[in-house]
Amino acid sequence: MSLPPTVTWQGGAAKGDLVIIDQTRLPRELIELRLNNLDSVIDAIKRLAVRGAPAIGVAGAYGCVIALRSGLGDKGLTRLAEARPTAVNLKWAVDRVRAAAKGDPARALKEAKLIHESDIETCAAIGRHGAKLIKNGSGVLTHCNAGALATAGMGTALAPMFTAHKAGRKFSVFADETRPLAQGARLTSFELAQSGIDVTVITDSMAAVVMREGRVQLAIVGADRIARNGDTANKIGTYGVATLCKAHDIPFYVAAPKSTFDAKLKSGKEIPIEQRDENEIRRPGGVQLVPDKAKVYNPAFDVTPARLIAGFITEDGILQADDLADWLSAPPGRAGV
Amino acid sequence: MSLPPTVTWQGGAAKGDLVIIDQTRLPRELIELRLNNLDSVIDAIKRLAVRGAPAIGVAGAYGCVIALRSGLGDKGLTRLAEARPTAVNLKWAVDRVRAAAKGDPARALKEAKLIHESDIETCAAIGRHGAKLIKNGSGVLTHCNAGALATAGMGTALAPMFTAHKAGRKFSVFADETRPLAQGARLTSFELAQSGIDVTVITDSMAAVVMREGRVQLAIVGADRIARNGDTANKIGTYGVATLCKAHDIPFYVAAPKSTFDAKLKSGKEIPIEQRDENEIRRPGGVQLVPDKAKVYNPAFDVTPARLIAGFITEDGILQADDLADWLSAPPGRAGV
Repeated sequence: MSLPPTVTWQGGAAKGDLVIIDQTRLPRELIELRLNNLDSVIDAIKRLAVRGAPAIGVAGAYGCVIALRSGLGDKGLTRLAEARPTAVNLKWAVDRVRAAAKGDPARALKEAKLIHESDIETCAAIGRHGAKLIKNGSGVLTHCNAGALATAGMGTALAPMFTAHKAGRKFSVFADETRPLAQGARLTSFELAQSGIDVTVITDSMAAVVMREGRVQLAIVGADRIARNGDTANKIGTYGVATLCKAHDIPFYVAAPKSTFDAKLKSGKEIPIEQRDENEIRRPGGVQLVPDKAKVYNPAFDVTPARLIAGFITEDGILQADDLADWLSAPPGRAGV
Repeated sequence: MSLPPTVTWQGGAAKGDLVIIDQTRLPRELIELRLNNLDSVIDAIKRLAVRGAPAIGVAGAYGCVIALRSGLGDKGLTRLAEARPTAVNLKWAVDRVRAAAKGDPARALKEAKLIHESDIETCAAIGRHGAKLIKNGSGVLTHCNAGALATAGMGTALAPMFTAHKAGRKFSVFADETRPLAQGARLTSFELAQSGIDVTVITDSMAAVVMREGRVQLAIVGADRIARNGDTANKIGTYGVATLCKAHDIPFYVAAPKSTFDAKLKSGKEIPIEQRDENEIRRPGGVQLVPDKAKVYNPAFDVTPARLIAGFITEDGILQADDLADWLSAPPGRAGV
């Protein structure tokens, strides 16, 4: 990738900046945002300038440094943790930094950097484990973007693709456009093509057809929050992809780090689903598409039930839904299957 | 509807015009195009200024008048018939006018007006038969636009909705956005909302979720060409909707006039599928979305196998796939089931 880091910190705790790529401008423009007050961090998260559960986690961790040095204290951290409701990584990261920092920006920065480094390693491990699923000649379908732009590392769902590609395997990827904000068309296509991987963008409505044409051997997607039983919240449209995979006997995998699992939740019914501004659908790019008299429904995520998921590609290996409860209660680093 | 006719003819055979609504501009602008040379008719069909299988048929019928009076003869008629490959109504209408006109524009106009009137009656009959399927409290999902803007009458898939609404039934409609050209978001939403029907636009990727939420009791779509065995070509995404309906035990209906059935074709495998310009996906509205390095796939239609279709709502009643062969070989007007 010739891109700068998706999320990084430049400078010390007292005066440093959170620097992110503004992903709403890709692939047309590469613009880096230098953030140094809490409101602008929260705004960047809300409007998806930084997005993807792990990347939001890392941005949130660094955001804690800014909140604490601005004297916004616990209240500021809570506002930050609640900037978006579905991805659990944000709350997880803020809670972890909150506990480690005890109000001190320098300690917060140290903890945020640990989270950042661990995300990089985790992505690499997901890539190693998941790459085994991608054979020469495979067609892989993915939805939304769970690549380097969604993490601080090489991605979750895209990590197995990058790893298999580096190992010399030849395969092709179908990237769903992923309406309404087109992260697949804009970001996944961009990352994969930059790396020299054969990628074809399709509209979300074409996924069923490429499956039926025999061009897809497996699907891999990321996740925003996964309940203890394996029910998985991810970008709207994921549940449809999983259902279509089942109908075409195509294995459907979820790639996610342990920090995306929420052991407190029994099932997907307990995952809060963010509803987003209807203008994302009514006026894409500011141009009226849907007339005012018609209603619009715009949930940002859906929940795929565990029964549709062939496996979870994690830093500890590929797990089945039945393995999750034990794995989540085990100390870090316990090997998967 | 406060709209002018989707397709009409103004004036006599020698100097009259084919007048259509430019549907690429809706819902933002209502612009009527006055067409009086063959190239502009073919261009309007190709770029979807007029679209929807029955509407293309009627426009093609009137286009024959223009071709013949311009001295373009049989060759002109063939060019017109081939302006778009998938919808069979275009070829059907041109062939019918060709046979009746024997080169005479006045006779062509007479036959085109018969086709036009018959389309209006056919739509009304489809509406009467299909309205029985829509109960009080039903949620109905549709894909693309098969309404008044897709025909010369009140539509095919939307006709049962208009008819049920006029009969006082209360129900709600989910209109798939229908990428890449958003005929659902722009046109279906517009027509239904204008008529006072409760309509909600969703992205194509949300169809599975509204089904799972129990908000959809049936799906009705139009068709561009239907083979003798019931395999149905319709706007890309339809096959996915049908597959999702099957997975959620929701009956999936196709509404279409007899002129959309192609008795010569044994199965959907023989239906030609139009591939459209990749810029519809790469640069929607002229703005680059997909980077140049990534590929794009843009089939305009897909084929839904008959086994996923609960019934065909036709002018002669609601038919099953098994009824089609007999019905297609019977003389016009034979009652369905």
